[in-house]
Amino acid sequence: MPDPSPVFDRLCIIGIGLIGSSLLRGARVHGLAKTLVAADLSPDVRRRVEELGIADITLADAGEAVKGADCVICCVPSGAFAAVGAAIGPHLEPGAVVTDTGSVKGAVIAQLAPHMPAGVHLVPAHPVAGTEHSGPDAGFAELFENRWCIFTPAADADPAAVAKLRAFWEGLGARIEVMTAEHHDLVLAITSHVPHLIAYNIVGTADDLEAVTQSEVIKFSAGGFRDFTRIAASDPTMWRDVFLNNKQAVLEVLGRFTEDLAYLQRAIRWGEGDKLFELFARTRAVRRSIIDIGQETAEPDFGRRHKPPTAP
Amino acid sequence: MPDPSPVFDRLCIIGIGLIGSSLLRGARVHGLAKTLVAADLSPDVRRRVEELGIADITLADAGEAVKGADCVICCVPSGAFAAVGAAIGPHLEPGAVVTDTGSVKGAVIAQLAPHMPAGVHLVPAHPVAGTEHSGPDAGFAELFENRWCIFTPAADADPAAVAKLRAFWEGLGARIEVMTAEHHDLVLAITSHVPHLIAYNIVGTADDLEAVTQSEVIKFSAGGFRDFTRIAASDPTMWRDVFLNNKQAVLEVLGRFTEDLAYLQRAIRWGEGDKLFELFARTRAVRRSIIDIGQETAEPDFGRRHKPPTAP
Repeated sequence: MPDPSPVFDRLCIIGIGLIGSSLLRGARVHGLAKTLVAADLSPDVRRRVEELGIADITLADAGEAVKGADCVICCVPSGAFAAVGAAIGPHLEPGAVVTDTGSVKGAVIAQLAPHMPAGVHLVPAHPVAGTEHSGPDAGFAELFENRWCIFTPAADADPAAVAKLRAFWEGLGARIEVMTAEHHDLVLAITSHVPHLIAYNIVGTADDLEAVTQSEVIKFSAGGFRDFTRIAASDPTMWRDVFLNNKQAVLEVLGRFTEDLAYLQRAIRWGEGDKLFELFARTRAVRRSIIDIGQETAEPDFGRRHKPPTAP
Repeated sequence: MPDPSPVFDRLCIIGIGLIGSSLLRGARVHGLAKTLVAADLSPDVRRRVEELGIADITLADAGEAVKGADCVICCVPSGAFAAVGAAIGPHLEPGAVVTDTGSVKGAVIAQLAPHMPAGVHLVPAHPVAGTEHSGPDAGFAELFENRWCIFTPAADADPAAVAKLRAFWEGLGARIEVMTAEHHDLVLAITSHVPHLIAYNIVGTADDLEAVTQSEVIKFSAGGFRDFTRIAASDPTMWRDVFLNNKQAVLEVLGRFTEDLAYLQRAIRWGEGDKLFELFARTRAVRRSIIDIGQETAEPDFGRRHKPPTAP
């Protein structure tokens, strides 16, 4: 299938981290925009974007960057949207599509919507994709291939704006799902936010134990612990903002998690092996389903390389 | 470096799952034993072992299998050692090394030791290696390369027996650490047992939520959840036995985990972003250390293949 013709004339990406730089790379590879504008407050990030050559224009000022853009994608931490909205609001082009890639939707919309002038189309979105690495060097054009991007447009959103954004994300290889912001925030609380929280937490617990040295934790991590360190190595600012901005859903799911964990704890204390076995046998099927729909590799151990690559 | 000459004349492996079959394969590849004897209670497993051709002799009866063996390695779930001990005790060869691969050491020693006749050397061991797959087909000769194997010999263990077992494991590419059984059980509680418990638990919680469909959990699992499903797909019998047999250490570490999680929960509720950020920034360093000592891949996302391999 040939790549589609450009969906946008002038695409402006604000915040050039893992996601922002992957969007720039993907948009270029697939010819999804005629001109790529990158905006970032950090001089170091701007210099790397220029060295990498992944944008046509690189600017510090987001307000300046959105001028003339028919699509603006905000790729900043969930707590930074009010500031970005205030900076870009007065300079947005009538008819422009404004969207984002935030992991939280309710709070991001609440920050961004008040700054949208009439005639500008806000279509919030969240690509469920990423790695534990951060910054403009971590991005790659294929990041969104075969991954879901969730749109949470308001009920009265402009269908043409939603369709253009859909064409853009499908051009990157993503699949689109539409739901309310409220439901999105609950779905992501269980599939992403609480998993990150408990991964950060177990790594912290291990780091703090007095009776087991840090060297022992690290040496014997192949017993399972190292799996958790991957997502616990994710960007601290982004994740702090996720928890502060999806408080209600995270606390709700966390309550369920700790209730279930107390049940297992009690089963261990009282030697109720059948309760443990029942759960452990059931959870296998969930992984099988994830592999079957192509959202996970079937290779054992994630297909991890068993030994570090030898030096060339 | 050439492979060592055979360490053992007749090596008997009891229980041919992922670990047992990896030992048979590794011992053959590296020439670590002259004769390989496999024992398993399951007719299906014995048939597969014969079809795979990974043992010289395959038997149902463990007592029969250990006759004449100078090394016996028990690779059964942690709850099965009393039965195995009773079956093999009367038939063990004087001077034989008896060892195991159990994930728990205190309880396994308690089950096995009473059945050891005088002149037989019990050297408990635990290779910190594995995948989420089970059964004789899941094994591979390289499983133990660059992985740690922890020995927990009694203070009065025969040094020559320990040295022979060390030569065997080093022949498989493993690195050896020696510690007490009690300390082993605490170290593994944090690096393996509690991580498995919380992985099983989060997958169970996700499976049970009414407000989020199972299809949604599966579709959007790339946000972090799918990482947990790997170890939650591990063998249910083995893991039930781990928790029943390492109760004290697991409950102790689990208590610390839930205490730390309550602290994060409170920080989220009260919007204390600095407490979250402090932890999230600290945990990155732990992963870096694990990568630096070669116990984890440095590739983003475990080096996962982004798309399922296309059919040939």
